[in-house]
Amino acid sequence: MAGSPQDAVHMARAVELAARGHGHTSPNPVVGCVVLDAAGRVAGEGFHAYAGGPHAEVAALREAGERARGGTAYVTLEPCDHTGRTGPCSGALLEAGVARVVHAVADPNPKAAGGAGRLRAAGVAVTAGVLAEEAERVNAEWLTWARLGRPHVTWKFAATLDGRSAAADGTSQWITSPEARADVHRLRARSDAIVAGIGTVLADDSRLTARPALAEGRPLRVVVDPDARTPATARVLDGAAPTLVAVAADTVTTLGADLLRVPRDGRGLDLHALLKELAAREVVSVFLEGGPTLAGAFLARGLVDRVVAYVAPALLGAGAAALGEAGVRTIGEAHRLIFDEVSPIGPDVRLVARPAPPHPRREK
Amino acid sequence: MAGSPQDAVHMARAVELAARGHGHTSPNPVVGCVVLDAAGRVAGEGFHAYAGGPHAEVAALREAGERARGGTAYVTLEPCDHTGRTGPCSGALLEAGVARVVHAVADPNPKAAGGAGRLRAAGVAVTAGVLAEEAERVNAEWLTWARLGRPHVTWKFAATLDGRSAAADGTSQWITSPEARADVHRLRARSDAIVAGIGTVLADDSRLTARPALAEGRPLRVVVDPDARTPATARVLDGAAPTLVAVAADTVTTLGADLLRVPRDGRGLDLHALLKELAAREVVSVFLEGGPTLAGAFLARGLVDRVVAYVAPALLGAGAAALGEAGVRTIGEAHRLIFDEVSPIGPDVRLVARPAPPHPRREK
Ligand SMILES: NC(=O)c1ccc[n+]([C@@H]2O[C@H](COP(=O)([O-])OP(=O)(O)OC[C@H]3O[C@@H](n4cnc5c(N)ncnc54)[C@H](OP(=O)(O)O)[C@@H]3O)[C@@H](O)[C@H]2O)c1
Ligand SMILES: NC(=O)c1ccc[n+]([C@@H]2O[C@H](COP(=O)([O-])OP(=O)(O)OC[C@H]3O[C@@H](n4cnc5c(N)ncnc54)[C@H](OP(=O)(O)O)[C@@H]3O)[C@@H](O)[C@H]2O)c1
Repeated sequence: MAGSPQDAVHMARAVELAARGHGHTSPNPVVGCVVLDAAGRVAGEGFHAYAGGPHAEVAALREAGERARGGTAYVTLEPCDHTGRTGPCSGALLEAGVARVVHAVADPNPKAAGGAGRLRAAGVAVTAGVLAEEAERVNAEWLTWARLGRPHVTWKFAATLDGRSAAADGTSQWITSPEARADVHRLRARSDAIVAGIGTVLADDSRLTARPALAEGRPLRVVVDPDARTPATARVLDGAAPTLVAVAADTVTTLGADLLRVPRDGRGLDLHALLKELAAREVVSVFLEGGPTLAGAFLARGLVDRVVAYVAPALLGAGAAALGEAGVRTIGEAHRLIFDEVSPIGPDVRLVARPAPPHPRREK
Repeated sequence: MAGSPQDAVHMARAVELAARGHGHTSPNPVVGCVVLDAAGRVAGEGFHAYAGGPHAEVAALREAGERARGGTAYVTLEPCDHTGRTGPCSGALLEAGVARVVHAVADPNPKAAGGAGRLRAAGVAVTAGVLAEEAERVNAEWLTWARLGRPHVTWKFAATLDGRSAAADGTSQWITSPEARADVHRLRARSDAIVAGIGTVLADDSRLTARPALAEGRPLRVVVDPDARTPATARVLDGAAPTLVAVAADTVTTLGADLLRVPRDGRGLDLHALLKELAAREVVSVFLEGGPTLAGAFLARGLVDRVVAYVAPALLGAGAAALGEAGVRTIGEAHRLIFDEVSPIGPDVRLVARPAPPHPRREK
């Protein structure tokens, strides 16, 4: 069910609206909605602005009022059919009297699914799959969380054009520009949790806060620290935002911090288990800040969903690599990606990529 | 003397025309020319198409014929005033009766300079410096050769997003796409010489030819091989194009190849001396294909004028780095560049950069 060109136009707008919710809706999805009147004129727009707030459909219907009757609703995600903090959207759409509902992505959440079925049963025309790819992309974090039961992971790194994150003597301030660093803070703020390895905490004593933050107390900071080597004086424990120190199940420590106990996996922690624990704490999106060792471990386990690389126009020729051991011995095992965006950020270039779909056989 | 907006429009076209000569004009510059009639209408266009062929001004004047009288000529490079394989362009412009000459870049060649002065003395209005930056860029190779007495050097490399050119086991075929590899051949064909280190020749047995080539017998292939380790059976000696093996002045060898004797500089060859020798052989542009060791040596000596990086959407986490030791110990010594172009090439991204102008003090 591809939908008409007009359908695509309105759904594109709904995707745009959905994006406004980024960083505010966890553990809910971002959703956008456009309501047309019976004559096909835009009558209302809405998006899910914050967890506990009105769903996108309800917001758009509220704006449309009586004009929704006999009209069409475009929704980026299949309308929910269950009563959570708010009533089911399928019911709201029926009550408003819309004649047609177009949605992009089916709801993967067993608790919420079924909205389309209920609407169809009530005589509403339902079209699915319009601009599904765009709507998947805007809601990638939540869809990953809902489908896989683990947070969506964005790995960020900053490096020179030759892939180095520090010079031979260890100095690295600054490789990228103030503009790139501001962009990192923007992405941190949109995330539910910022995750870093103990190596990074010990080397940089980073605060791992978003400046400015979108809300008090977020994002959550997580240090992956099997043996509880985080110093009590580390900035990441400064109280500016909550912090979890993920330690091995068997680690004995007197560290006065919130501990998350995770089984060991070889030399480090079991990262699948760590992510499951975070998902259970309603962490939908993780911003992985490295370092290279931890990033390599995430990659090797297939746990990176997006890569954001800030590449500075500079060459070093020596110094720490941006990425450590990632389970690749030979070229055929390379982690293949697809570039989604390439954009200038000040003097630097930001490249956003995601894992390429599995390929039966690479070109020779 | 900035010129009018109309001047910029015509000069932009002249720059476009100049670019058509790329790969055909060495040891001459690329030059473009637009001639307007007295009423300001375009009467003729021309560019320097090949060494020994008519200069851009002559080609454009020929097309304009009598309409050039009282008109304006736009030339990307100051018209020459000396008789080489062709007559002086200043004379041709005077003969055609143009009333005004606008040029972008002054001729740095002491043999050819003086055209503007002669035109002025003859009563022609001369405007200099219009779109100088664009005209510098299109003619970067020749201007470097003419000003510094050495070829312009473009260093090309292909790497993953994490800056690696091979996997841990040494495999590297293929990191970048067929589209990127075709682009490399296009850039090779435009160059006067392709330079590679003996490490690359031994590891890859590369042919170092441009396929397709723009002309028989070019580009020249140069192996930087202090101790004449190039095997007699190496593909680079296959006769498909001329090859020079650059060896140390004191190296004793029976290798049946054209040798270029160059003084030693520490462990390798004196790269300044090597480039001077190539410049004397009318090599205006060098395409440096690495490997990482030789590229690092060129960079450390300030001998890289342009970097072309093909970055594949892939991560390796281990394996050979794209760039070796380049004389940088600490971050303040990084080779800072400016990105000029960022463009998709198939699934890959091509980044073109040039050295940043020296900066009194970097931001802290
Ligand atoms: N350019 C950038 O974008 C960027 C970003 C962040 C950091 N950095 C730099 O990276 C450097 C630190 O990186 P790093 O590689 O040394 O340390 P890291 O990646 O921050 O932390 C590595 C540590 O994480 C722990 N770990 C827990 N579970 C693991 C698992 N499953 N696999 C692997 N490790 C696991 C291990 O701790 P134990 O050893 O205690 O077991 C391991 O040593 C710093 O110099 C920092 O400046 C750069
Ligand atoms: N990804 C790419 O774009 C790309 C491109 C090219 C090559 N590669 C890879 O790079 C690898 C080979 O690179 P490599 O670093 O081993 O070798 P290389 O850079 O090709 O050659 C290095 C050699 O050049 C000679 N040399 C002469 N003058 C020198 C100087 N002033 N400074 C430094 N060296 C000088 C030295 O030879 P002596 O030792 O005889 O003194 C030195 O060992 C291959 O695996 C190849 O596949 C990748």
